[in-house]
Amino acid sequence: MPDNAPLTDLAAELPDGMVVTDPDILAGYRQDRALDPDAGTPLALVRPSTTAQVQTIIRWCASHGIKVVTRGAGTSLSGGSTAVDGALVLSTERMRDLSVDTATRTATVQPGLLNTEVKAAAVAHGLWYPPDPSSFEICSIGGNVATNAGGLCCVKYGVTVDYVLGLEVVLADGRAIRVGGRQIKDSAGLPLTKLFVGSEGVLGIITEITLRLLPAQPPACTVVGVFPSVTEAGRAVLAVTDQIRPAMLEFMDAVAVNAVEDMMTMGLPREAAALLIAQSDAPGPAGAEEVALIQAAFEAHGATECFSTDDPAEGEAFTAARRAAIPAVERLGSLLLEDVGVPLPALPDLIDGVAEIAATQDVTISVIAHAGDGNTHPLIAYDPTDAAQHDRAQAAFGQIMDLAISLGGTITGEHGVGRLKKAWLPDQVGPDVMQVTAAIKAALDPDGLLNPGVLL
Amino acid sequence: MPDNAPLTDLAAELPDGMVVTDPDILAGYRQDRALDPDAGTPLALVRPSTTAQVQTIIRWCASHGIKVVTRGAGTSLSGGSTAVDGALVLSTERMRDLSVDTATRTATVQPGLLNTEVKAAAVAHGLWYPPDPSSFEICSIGGNVATNAGGLCCVKYGVTVDYVLGLEVVLADGRAIRVGGRQIKDSAGLPLTKLFVGSEGVLGIITEITLRLLPAQPPACTVVGVFPSVTEAGRAVLAVTDQIRPAMLEFMDAVAVNAVEDMMTMGLPREAAALLIAQSDAPGPAGAEEVALIQAAFEAHGATECFSTDDPAEGEAFTAARRAAIPAVERLGSLLLEDVGVPLPALPDLIDGVAEIAATQDVTISVIAHAGDGNTHPLIAYDPTDAAQHDRAQAAFGQIMDLAISLGGTITGEHGVGRLKKAWLPDQVGPDVMQVTAAIKAALDPDGLLNPGVLL
Repeated sequence: MPDNAPLTDLAAELPDGMVVTDPDILAGYRQDRALDPDAGTPLALVRPSTTAQVQTIIRWCASHGIKVVTRGAGTSLSGGSTAVDGALVLSTERMRDLSVDTATRTATVQPGLLNTEVKAAAVAHGLWYPPDPSSFEICSIGGNVATNAGGLCCVKYGVTVDYVLGLEVVLADGRAIRVGGRQIKDSAGLPLTKLFVGSEGVLGIITEITLRLLPAQPPACTVVGVFPSVTEAGRAVLAVTDQIRPAMLEFMDAVAVNAVEDMMTMGLPREAAALLIAQSDAPGPAGAEEVALIQAAFEAHGATECFSTDDPAEGEAFTAARRAAIPAVERLGSLLLEDVGVPLPALPDLIDGVAEIAATQDVTISVIAHAGDGNTHPLIAYDPTDAAQHDRAQAAFGQIMDLAISLGGTITGEHGVGRLKKAWLPDQVGPDVMQVTAAIKAALDPDGLLNPGVLL
Repeated sequence: MPDNAPLTDLAAELPDGMVVTDPDILAGYRQDRALDPDAGTPLALVRPSTTAQVQTIIRWCASHGIKVVTRGAGTSLSGGSTAVDGALVLSTERMRDLSVDTATRTATVQPGLLNTEVKAAAVAHGLWYPPDPSSFEICSIGGNVATNAGGLCCVKYGVTVDYVLGLEVVLADGRAIRVGGRQIKDSAGLPLTKLFVGSEGVLGIITEITLRLLPAQPPACTVVGVFPSVTEAGRAVLAVTDQIRPAMLEFMDAVAVNAVEDMMTMGLPREAAALLIAQSDAPGPAGAEEVALIQAAFEAHGATECFSTDDPAEGEAFTAARRAAIPAVERLGSLLLEDVGVPLPALPDLIDGVAEIAATQDVTISVIAHAGDGNTHPLIAYDPTDAAQHDRAQAAFGQIMDLAISLGGTITGEHGVGRLKKAWLPDQVGPDVMQVTAAIKAALDPDGLLNPGVLL
């Protein structure tokens, strides 16, 4: 930070109390859910509630060369909203306007709303906003857009980008632009709407989002399979997806099952090597056919128990168990969170390869997965007070990403690259794509003010 | 063209006959389906079949400052592939490789394949590639990606961008990059895959496309409604989409109905002011409910006749009638083809406004529409030998785009801006978005070699 940055000038341009420098408050905005011990100390925290205020802040940043980290709910698992020394933290938590337009079946929202609040607003109008990160109760819709977040339903219903029709974005020089709109179809000009979805805050600050909604999801039937073999569970996934497109197809290994059972005591099968949780939301007889097919696939791959229910509460209990896996496994140690994805046929190889890495590095790695779309979350749990174990965990973290790349996959399916995975991005995409990335970044943010250290 | 451009050097680097300078052949590559009378005369035509050949061509262009117009099947309705004086025309027609991977439910294709060929390959594996421009039998998949093409099923199944998972792109300096892959989820780096979809050939040349496929579409039931009032037909559209998401919801006005009947003699109701053609592909009882609901909505808005069928051939006959509207109306005169879209509630206002423009300008304007997603194709038919009528048609062409913009809509829903609508793009998106567009163009194609005159 330049010593003479007139923070008081910025404060004077904004409502009272919007610029915060109290170290106790700032401390709560240094880290995100990645809990990076190297998180910086911000110059200040600003909590605007309007686009105009965001513009004021960014113009001030631009004129003083101050960098800015945009933060939604701070739930990034890849350090995308970790504070940087001397930079502002711009929190969108007070940007909470929302409207639903049933005629165009869209919601127009500010970025600080939680995903669950957007979902609830849609439900109140008989509609549905599908993307459902496991953290949907605590993550912001702005962060979802910034990372192109996924979730459990994506195997059938796609990811965040599939639902973003329009955006308002404040650029690095403080101008606000609108791209897209409320139409499903819009081929006018470069597809800038889609460019900003997943850009992790490095190209602009998203201040308003127009989301496509669907009619309410039909009631889903849930099938749970208990497997004595992790590899066979992986093959059962392929056996299902080869035939149908389930509405959900989730995987938990034994470590995750037991960690969740320790935390929630809901009667999960502790003896299972792996659990698969599938849903079908096809209506009527078609749904019954899908359920039968899922059960047959599970049984053909050695499921020792196979249970199905059309009771939504019962189904939701299993889904909740799956969603609770990350906090549950976190009780076993500090976590390094992977988000690797592979083309579906490589899923068993990925799962086997992770087990080998765990054995070689002698660290606990629990694998949970949005198995139906090949997106897995190996969770490396380690004792941070054991320096050697910490180093082995870090080595495993890199090796798992290397493995995913070698299988034709991605280092991040839905969490974003953030700061923690930046070193591996060139290995996945190659130098030419990195150069194009840098060129676009330079075109939109020539002074590198926006979310420094992310991606590039 | 620089006088000394060594075209023979380029020819020597490519297989025999790949560089064409025969004026008779070149003549067939000057215009596209927009039939721009001001189309240029290309320096030469090149028809590569591999990515490496495209790279050779683009490197030659870059080193000699020769511009290049990429052309798929030449079916652009907005002049996106109209030749430019002194530029190469790079036709992708010989880039026809295709493979389907059932395990990942993807097709990987070269850009020169026709949309119908991609669809057929998917069907051969029990799968479905949904996007269905009316021109699907003659338009290329590369052109579809370049324009983010839509079609009839988009109201339920989305547009081309929703199906593009990965791309290979040759950049303006001849480097080939790969972006995305075969995963549904991939948040690694800037979303470059999506940036290229709809970029109309100005950022790079798409040489390979990985498309997401769906399970085969369930059989659809078709409902046809005959309306004595265009406005009431528009309201019936809203009454349907307020309640369900049909698999198709198409509109034809009386001019289109009669033009198609003149051409195809299939017993369409010549007395109708408008026809709506809807489909439901919900399985079993859910489908029957949707059909009943569509019929009730049609009847509530004054449909004098309402006909439904679950015979696929019968349904396809009506769909084919709708798809034939453009060539049929073209028999009434030269066409200026609109592609304006509006948020759905504004559809009746758009239809009424177009009628007013037709009356004021004293020109025939037939309106056909992908009504369910608010995307309309007013077709201005005029006598090109009548200079005054030509001018009035041109005036109407601009007024319709102005109207769409004033209704919060877009000048192009699925055809792209091309060269014909470029003058209206700034009115829709504003100067700041144009500046961002230019900055990204400059970042990727600093010398402006790729598809000059399109968008910018």
